[in-house]
Amino acid sequence: MDQFSFTEICLHQLKMSGVHEGEKLIVLTQGNERLDYADAFMAAGMRLGAKMYHMRLPPVPPAGAWAVGQTGLAAMPDAVEALKAADMLIDCIFLLFSPEQMAIQAAGTRILTAVEPPEILARMLPTKELRERVEYAGELLSKAKVMRITSAHGTDVTYKLNTYPAITEYACTDEPGRWDHWPSGLLPQNIYVRDPIYYTIENGWITDIRGGLDAELVKSYMDGFNDPRGMGMSHVGWGLNQNAKWHRMVPGEFPGGMGMEARSFYGNVMFSTGPNNELGGPNDTACHLDIPMRNCSLFLDDEPMVLNGDIAVKEMKHTVKS
Amino acid sequence: MDQFSFTEICLHQLKMSGVHEGEKLIVLTQGNERLDYADAFMAAGMRLGAKMYHMRLPPVPPAGAWAVGQTGLAAMPDAVEALKAADMLIDCIFLLFSPEQMAIQAAGTRILTAVEPPEILARMLPTKELRERVEYAGELLSKAKVMRITSAHGTDVTYKLNTYPAITEYACTDEPGRWDHWPSGLLPQNIYVRDPIYYTIENGWITDIRGGLDAELVKSYMDGFNDPRGMGMSHVGWGLNQNAKWHRMVPGEFPGGMGMEARSFYGNVMFSTGPNNELGGPNDTACHLDIPMRNCSLFLDDEPMVLNGDIAVKEMKHTVKS
Amino acid sequence: MDQFSFTEICLHQLKMSGVHEGEKLIVLTQGNERLDYADAFMAAGMRLGAKMYHMRLPPVPPAGAWAVGQTGLAAMPDAVEALKAADMLIDCIFLLFSPEQMAIQAAGTRILTAVEPPEILARMLPTKELRERVEYAGELLSKAKVMRITSAHGTDVTYKLNTYPAITEYACTDEPGRWDHWPSGLLPQNIYVRDPIYYTIENGWITDIRGGLDAELVKSYMDGFNDPRGMGMSHVGWGLNQNAKWHRMVPGEFPGGMGMEARSFYGNVMFSTGPNNELGGPNDTACHLDIPMRNCSLFLDDEPMVLNGDIAVKEMKHTVKS
Amino acid sequence: MDQFSFTEICLHQLKMSGVHEGEKLIVLTQGNERLDYADAFMAAGMRLGAKMYHMRLPPVPPAGAWAVGQTGLAAMPDAVEALKAADMLIDCIFLLFSPEQMAIQAAGTRILTAVEPPEILARMLPTKELRERVEYAGELLSKAKVMRITSAHGTDVTYKLNTYPAITEYACTDEPGRWDHWPSGLLPQNIYVRDPIYYTIENGWITDIRGGLDAELVKSYMDGFNDPRGMGMSHVGWGLNQNAKWHRMVPGEFPGGMGMEARSFYGNVMFSTGPNNELGGPNDTACHLDIPMRNCSLFLDDEPMVLNGDIAVKEMKHTVKS
Amino acid sequence: MDQFSFTEICLHQLKMSGVHEGEKLIVLTQGNERLDYADAFMAAGMRLGAKMYHMRLPPVPPAGAWAVGQTGLAAMPDAVEALKAADMLIDCIFLLFSPEQMAIQAAGTRILTAVEPPEILARMLPTKELRERVEYAGELLSKAKVMRITSAHGTDVTYKLNTYPAITEYACTDEPGRWDHWPSGLLPQNIYVRDPIYYTIENGWITDIRGGLDAELVKSYMDGFNDPRGMGMSHVGWGLNQNAKWHRMVPGEFPGGMGMEARSFYGNVMFSTGPNNELGGPNDTACHLDIPMRNCSLFLDDEPMVLNGDIAVKEMKHTVKS
Amino acid sequence: MDQFSFTEICLHQLKMSGVHEGEKLIVLTQGNERLDYADAFMAAGMRLGAKMYHMRLPPVPPAGAWAVGQTGLAAMPDAVEALKAADMLIDCIFLLFSPEQMAIQAAGTRILTAVEPPEILARMLPTKELRERVEYAGELLSKAKVMRITSAHGTDVTYKLNTYPAITEYACTDEPGRWDHWPSGLLPQNIYVRDPIYYTIENGWITDIRGGLDAELVKSYMDGFNDPRGMGMSHVGWGLNQNAKWHRMVPGEFPGGMGMEARSFYGNVMFSTGPNNELGGPNDTACHLDIPMRNCSLFLDDEPMVLNGDIAVKEMKHTVKS
Repeated sequence: MDQFSFTEICLHQLKMSGVHEGEKLIVLTQGNERLDYADAFMAAGMRLGAKMYHMRLPPVPPAGAWAVGQTGLAAMPDAVEALKAADMLIDCIFLLFSPEQMAIQAAGTRILTAVEPPEILARMLPTKELRERVEYAGELLSKAKVMRITSAHGTDVTYKLNTYPAITEYACTDEPGRWDHWPSGLLPQNIYVRDPIYYTIENGWITDIRGGLDAELVKSYMDGFNDPRGMGMSHVGWGLNQNAKWHRMVPGEFPGGMGMEARSFYGNVMFSTGPNNELGGPNDTACHLDIPMRNCSLFLDDEPMVLNGDIAVKEMKHTVKS
Repeated sequence: MDQFSFTEICLHQLKMSGVHEGEKLIVLTQGNERLDYADAFMAAGMRLGAKMYHMRLPPVPPAGAWAVGQTGLAAMPDAVEALKAADMLIDCIFLLFSPEQMAIQAAGTRILTAVEPPEILARMLPTKELRERVEYAGELLSKAKVMRITSAHGTDVTYKLNTYPAITEYACTDEPGRWDHWPSGLLPQNIYVRDPIYYTIENGWITDIRGGLDAELVKSYMDGFNDPRGMGMSHVGWGLNQNAKWHRMVPGEFPGGMGMEARSFYGNVMFSTGPNNELGGPNDTACHLDIPMRNCSLFLDDEPMVLNGDIAVKEMKHTVKS
Repeated sequence: MDQFSFTEICLHQLKMSGVHEGEKLIVLTQGNERLDYADAFMAAGMRLGAKMYHMRLPPVPPAGAWAVGQTGLAAMPDAVEALKAADMLIDCIFLLFSPEQMAIQAAGTRILTAVEPPEILARMLPTKELRERVEYAGELLSKAKVMRITSAHGTDVTYKLNTYPAITEYACTDEPGRWDHWPSGLLPQNIYVRDPIYYTIENGWITDIRGGLDAELVKSYMDGFNDPRGMGMSHVGWGLNQNAKWHRMVPGEFPGGMGMEARSFYGNVMFSTGPNNELGGPNDTACHLDIPMRNCSLFLDDEPMVLNGDIAVKEMKHTVKS
Repeated sequence: MDQFSFTEICLHQLKMSGVHEGEKLIVLTQGNERLDYADAFMAAGMRLGAKMYHMRLPPVPPAGAWAVGQTGLAAMPDAVEALKAADMLIDCIFLLFSPEQMAIQAAGTRILTAVEPPEILARMLPTKELRERVEYAGELLSKAKVMRITSAHGTDVTYKLNTYPAITEYACTDEPGRWDHWPSGLLPQNIYVRDPIYYTIENGWITDIRGGLDAELVKSYMDGFNDPRGMGMSHVGWGLNQNAKWHRMVPGEFPGGMGMEARSFYGNVMFSTGPNNELGGPNDTACHLDIPMRNCSLFLDDEPMVLNGDIAVKEMKHTVKS
Repeated sequence: MDQFSFTEICLHQLKMSGVHEGEKLIVLTQGNERLDYADAFMAAGMRLGAKMYHMRLPPVPPAGAWAVGQTGLAAMPDAVEALKAADMLIDCIFLLFSPEQMAIQAAGTRILTAVEPPEILARMLPTKELRERVEYAGELLSKAKVMRITSAHGTDVTYKLNTYPAITEYACTDEPGRWDHWPSGLLPQNIYVRDPIYYTIENGWITDIRGGLDAELVKSYMDGFNDPRGMGMSHVGWGLNQNAKWHRMVPGEFPGGMGMEARSFYGNVMFSTGPNNELGGPNDTACHLDIPMRNCSLFLDDEPMVLNGDIAVKEMKHTVKS
Repeated sequence: MDQFSFTEICLHQLKMSGVHEGEKLIVLTQGNERLDYADAFMAAGMRLGAKMYHMRLPPVPPAGAWAVGQTGLAAMPDAVEALKAADMLIDCIFLLFSPEQMAIQAAGTRILTAVEPPEILARMLPTKELRERVEYAGELLSKAKVMRITSAHGTDVTYKLNTYPAITEYACTDEPGRWDHWPSGLLPQNIYVRDPIYYTIENGWITDIRGGLDAELVKSYMDGFNDPRGMGMSHVGWGLNQNAKWHRMVPGEFPGGMGMEARSFYGNVMFSTGPNNELGGPNDTACHLDIPMRNCSLFLDDEPMVLNGDIAVKEMKHTVKS
């Protein structure tokens, strides 16, 4: 994407995130990755009169190489302090699930994660209308006690709610200490599942996975972490973004992306496994998997939120302007 | 690809397209896309003594962003006038199906579309021999009254011909007002179909699509346009290019391409849905889908042109030189 | 200079040049030169709602090489026609003194030349106040009958006025068919003269040049054109731009510039030799030399405009805001 | 990947390959491909005190274009002589199976092939422990007389050994004339096989291939070479690299790679067809296919080396340090 | 210069500046300037085990443009706080004379300024021997009461010492809060003076400047600041760097440099005018001029330090190793 | 300059240098310098059917840094052997005066040096007519016994000839073992001399240099080498290239050049000091200075070749075609 266009969509994003004259922003990148993101956000922020700088961390040492240690913010508490002093942090690295992100949020800095390819960011621009519908869903969720997910293929999972708080995402953030992402995620494969995968889940833990090639891929991926806590239940939710389309996951079209569009589509039910520390839980395993599902139903206290892949509550429905 | 090699294949293309000293050429691009194409065509054209310039349109505003309007040529009638004054337009944007392209052709300017990755363009270089076989096919087609497509999987579609003209494509163009593409196309997914997709077609319109994941992808894609005219029949034809191979569609190998090699392979029968305005028809829907099929048969007035995925007419057959 | 900053100064320039929504602009460049200028002007124009495109001519063949012919616009009347259709042409090539520029202006297109390095453009941004003072000077000039230039070193040249029109320059242009440059010029050496150069001028023609190394440089340069018409008198005038400083001509600081700052400084008297065709005269020699002089006096009908290097008319004086 | 990080992994590689002060190294690339590889290896080698230069061959003419002949080293015996004079050749082109590579090795030059994307190279860094296990396997192999491969899906192939020598690969090379690759390969499709492919093999030749879409892809690919010798048996072996994961073959993630990670994973049995000239055999067909298989068993003289996809010999097993 | 070589000289510099494992370094740049410096220092620092990040400020708005305000650190106290937390700041912007630099030094952070072109940095690498000689000179200076500068051309200036502290420069810095530059400076013209310039100096202030073109350049430059405090005496000193050569100031050879080599040459006496706030004085004018002089003599309390352009004290003399 | 144009002038050069199908060419560069030269020569050579490769040496370690030793070819005898095997070496490093260059020439390889900026190369394209005049001059020179140089300023130097051979230069080379440069040279300052410089020369050695600033620059430059052999007489000759202009030496216009245009202009007499090893003499000092002089006379055995800066022999005169 043109730097001109990229700057324009960042300008739209920063306005939606409430950036105004005199606010203190920091754009965070790593190595030589996403320097164009930094340029676009810096140019956009300057047009809004923000006081900004770009913090560029050294590259992470390549896996398995001469070094073992973690790089990044963990080793640099001073850098974390500098980030805490900002009103808003634009994270182009993906700090999610790190204690540093939690510390920065706790200091009142709001965080926007932006790591998807610019073409995807353009498709996924936040809107006021989406935010309203998401916030409505958030209220329903925070009041509910039980969540149940079903599908015609036999899916039937029940979650007890209220242990951890509900988190909403609408792709921009204008409240102190709040995190959101301009769509993002973390899934290694970005493929469509063609064969059924059978999970057995008991007491919040997966006890068995069976199926064909797709199940084998999931198991081989999870085995690679050598961490049994990867079998725990992670976050769960549903998608409301009418601009995201599940059919657009074209292999290799925009290298470097993380497949967030396919995680956000309208009416999907997201099943995730692995860490729950972002919500305050104790499981901080690195083995995380997001599986957005089509054609499922999701109930809160027996009230359908999603019914066979469609949103079932009027206030959350997207209505085309006519 | 090296700029040196890219220039050489463009030189070959321009010679095949009859470019000669003193001809007036314009290379059309948009934003920062395909500037290397413009450089290669400019260098090639200058070696042939053509009088050229490069017209670069502003970038299209990112989808769904702050602007609604169409950019590009539609908003700039003066630019269209400038293009009409050229002998040949090298379109690196993809103007196909636009009224501007029709107006430019009507003014006698020939148009060559070139948007595939250079590696694909190199594989798909036009040859005299291909052009002769394609023109032979074009003559058969223009005389026929009925076209029928069948396959062992149950495909059986009949088209009445002669409503719209036959159009040939052989990847270069040396006649005033004629359009061709150095292979190109427009398909969003570029995947192999693994599960059968069942179309029901009545009176030139699709009335039903059924099947597995692949059928779901097709339906979700078409639904995204929210335009019932996408269910109409579009162009139909068959492939004669012996250099194109259906098995070469490697996901992500050349990001940015549109999968034209898989549309052009020798013996394919191409089934397309959506607009027919390029042929003079009234349907100008943006919902277009090309589905090149292997192992089908295509008959003109009961004479087989393609039989079980092989060319059945001697004059259209590719024969290896020995 | 940063692309962000470059875009901002172009935005300022286009506003000063009266660009508004819906206006038709073309940015003209050549080969791979000044592509960043085109990007900056395109981005600036789009923010003002202009309808723009970038016309890029092929590179000029290197001097003395395999080709003799002129390239550029002269060989492409269609391109000239396209430029005539624009409301404003931003010329990043330097068309001055060409018949094509005159034809484009005659069609009502206004032209802004911008070829200096961005750092110089930033220093030389047009202002309303400068424009007012220049226009005042223009009125005085158009009424005068005789211009005389003197200096303490013995300079004493008299011009009869009114043969050709007066032309003002204030670095932006918002009137149809008017040309201006965001400072520009054409001088091969960009050096300070250290030894006196003695010109003998009779009836509008130089008949002798004498002096030391600097005079030898001038003569060797002029001899290179092998054209006696280079000895004719060209335009003459004085500078009013308080932001231009004669002492800033640092060799090699911004490669690619043409030394326009040193031509524009406040109180300079500009002595030029060579072509007069930009004013309608018959001399279109390519041998042009601009010599801006410090500490001179210039009189119109015996009224001092410049006195010993300072502006002598109150309305043309720059006054610091306090 | 950052040039800093790339240099560091090349430094690790060169140390593992025994490069020391005063050694003579040449890095070989082609056209504009992999210039960053040359820079990284040059910087790494200079830090070790090696005497190096970079030999860059002209680009290969695009396929099917104006030229038929082979380029590269074959046409330049002098370049081959220069390479023979080096102690080590870092081949970033992929010379494997060429007579030039054999001649260079015969002269005592060791060769390291490095053509995978840097991210893959980083994952596949050689280690001492891997080398020891591979060398153990090599010894077993060189003593065995019969190799048999089976799987639960019915695979049952028997190879008679000892006609050609055993070759080991552990991703670095420190012995004169020895070749290795920092993982590399040559497979056109890089896809997972979803439907069974049935090969019939008799007397070292494939006599039949049957199955679904995947079998059709294999057949279409092989037909493209128009060379019956592609049906011959090529090398065969098994994988020991615990860092390679079969599930990591994400389409389009790192464009330009050849899928070597999927060829190297721990416990795979590699079935290959086509040339055997790298081992001294007579078949030098260009039609080569590597098919790494999961969950197979491989026996040497009835002793299991791999059993149902797991390494069965203690000395070859990877054991996690604890 | 190659990024490889640039990194190596930065590594040498950081070692000379005492950087060791675990130290906290920040590299400071602005806009898109000197990103290669940041990359080289980051790579060098990582090889020493430092904990680093790169802080990139937004570009300074172009002079005279739409904005008046100062950017940079002054507007961002949080960024200054972040810099104070570092052990060492590598300043690639040129903070000298700013209150922010003073605050950062006061916090104990040492600062190294590096803004010259890499080729100049390479020539001016710090050495132990230079440092020792400079420190010896610093001790002499701090004890002296009067400094007198003379030359055969009539120069005769006397400074009373001890009002402000002595500062040494040896191109690296390993003490908390100490500033040095890897040679740098601030002179607008970078030319050789050919005609005498006559200064009259009374009570620490210039009262008159006379001479030819060079004197005119100095006066025009100083007038541009419109600040009478530019006529004050600034720092004064002498050069000991035997690697710096006054004859190497080739116009335009390395665009972007500030001419520091010509300020540092062995035996020069540096005469400076303008601010004295870096030493704790009250004059913070922006009008600063450094004039390094050849063939002068400098006396401390009548003891010659420099005699006719040569160093006169044995301990400060450079002696060639033999 | 455009890569297209650069390739075209290289094509012209290679044709003038007799390159034909099947010839073996090597382009030699160093570090990241002049990669565009290599690309242009490779593309040009390929269009002529030459067999080429690019040999890129590692960068030279920055002066005064961690290393003392010489890099480049001297340390790599194998690379020299590879260069000897070529028919033609295009030297983009500047090997002149090195023993390696002599060895390569002795092996029959012809060498063309090309290190000036492309814009200068374009101006200095070789022509048949220039070559004929230069060869005529070479014949006169090889027969003469005494050369005397005089000028109106008092220059009067006499050389005894025949100790070393005469060498001609006409900017291309088509004879085995012959060296030429597409204009090149080695002068550190590239300035015009404004004050007289007085040399005293006795028995082939300079014994005194006096004068003003320019003389001081020459002396300081020569002192920097600390080598008395720099005071020896080097080559001497005169210029015949009518396209070279002495007045075009604009400081900083094309950074990176060596000022060869000013060495080649028609009628100059070139006075050089330092090494004579290129002609077979024993002096290989690194202290070399070329001083091209205007308005001098040069006599061979009392016959004027150049008279007051003009060529005096009809056969060597440039005559304008009319």
